[in-house]
Amino acid sequence: MNRTVVLLSGGIDSTTCLALAVSSGENDVYALNITYGQKHVRELKSAAAVAAYYHVPYRLLDLSSVFAESSCSLLRHSNKEIDHSSYAEQLKKKGNEGKVGTYVPFRNGLMLSAAAGYAESIGAVRIVYGAHADDAAGRAYPDCTPEFVKYMNLAITEGTGGAVSLEAPFISCNKAEIVRRGLELKVPYHLTWSCYEGGEYPCGTCGTCRDRIRAFEINNARDPLIYPG
Amino acid sequence: MNRTVVLLSGGIDSTTCLALAVSSGENDVYALNITYGQKHVRELKSAAAVAAYYHVPYRLLDLSSVFAESSCSLLRHSNKEIDHSSYAEQLKKKGNEGKVGTYVPFRNGLMLSAAAGYAESIGAVRIVYGAHADDAAGRAYPDCTPEFVKYMNLAITEGTGGAVSLEAPFISCNKAEIVRRGLELKVPYHLTWSCYEGGEYPCGTCGTCRDRIRAFEINNARDPLIYPG
Repeated sequence: MNRTVVLLSGGIDSTTCLALAVSSGENDVYALNITYGQKHVRELKSAAAVAAYYHVPYRLLDLSSVFAESSCSLLRHSNKEIDHSSYAEQLKKKGNEGKVGTYVPFRNGLMLSAAAGYAESIGAVRIVYGAHADDAAGRAYPDCTPEFVKYMNLAITEGTGGAVSLEAPFISCNKAEIVRRGLELKVPYHLTWSCYEGGEYPCGTCGTCRDRIRAFEINNARDPLIYPG
Repeated sequence: MNRTVVLLSGGIDSTTCLALAVSSGENDVYALNITYGQKHVRELKSAAAVAAYYHVPYRLLDLSSVFAESSCSLLRHSNKEIDHSSYAEQLKKKGNEGKVGTYVPFRNGLMLSAAAGYAESIGAVRIVYGAHADDAAGRAYPDCTPEFVKYMNLAITEGTGGAVSLEAPFISCNKAEIVRRGLELKVPYHLTWSCYEGGEYPCGTCGTCRDRIRAFEINNARDPLIYPG
């Protein structure tokens, strides 16, 4: 058994990563969730519930102090409204290339570095995270591109003296393909959370709600979460 | 003026980096110190004093929660004693290759990632940090090698969509060469701190005290700190 740290936010991508790591039967899986000052703390409950469902140890780290000066709309202290158009529409406004308003400065780099430090501390040899092609498109989230994953893996492998490496099993998949794999693995999607707003129920209209709903539709499946309207 | 974040620990290397960045006259310098649970909190006072000396904004981030499970001897919660032999002797015991007991798991990766998130948040375009050839030798600290710096720069540049890059001006220098440059720049070394122990005065015998004292001797200079004996 290889000890493996899965970055688990409680959303669809990371939950499916966790399911994949557990289902292989070859991993001693640890879930790590990192909070960074986001509005949608509802997601934290989902991550804990998913980890409990899979009977894996769960650790929550708070690194929100790093982003105290960021004006990103995803953050609690930000005055900016979260854009409720789809990523495709947001990208179109930017000429199909550029960071979206919900990009948090180098957030994934920070999360992966913290995961590397944690992983090496507990004797894990691998970090798994759920970057995928939809988030990387047009560099909407430049910390999700295949190049970014490649460079972070090189930095982590070198910086830990070969102790830890990084895997992103869905780097070439879109969200619909992730959901397809997850449905095969019987992932408890009713426990997950994706909405960028902090409400009791998902808003159904923010970029990530829209992408999630569509990913289920493409698979002729029903998102088990309850949306308004 | 380019806004620049200098990682400042209060030691010789990072203080000389700060002096270099300020002296060029082309940088709007911000100092960022990151505490990670180390025993030698005395260093924090030094970092603040150095930043005040150079009249640059100073920010302290606490990321110690990441290393709660690490057994590294440098950490407050560790029961391990800090090795008081020189790095060269410690490396010799390991066949001249391998991490020393004061290596903190992927610490520099975490610090640089936090610096990247902070830098992009405040509109800085560059991070400067004091990695040097002595720390990289034999991969005693694998998160100080030229390869590590190269990969982290690629990851930061890609992950921030080109907003921030990383520089390590002393990556090819040893500590004596850093001190030589620092003496030219009239760096206030009396304000700095290097000792790995948490005492009121430096111990004079831990790996980093030994390296520091020797770096001054090579330059026919006197370390302004007071050592016992």
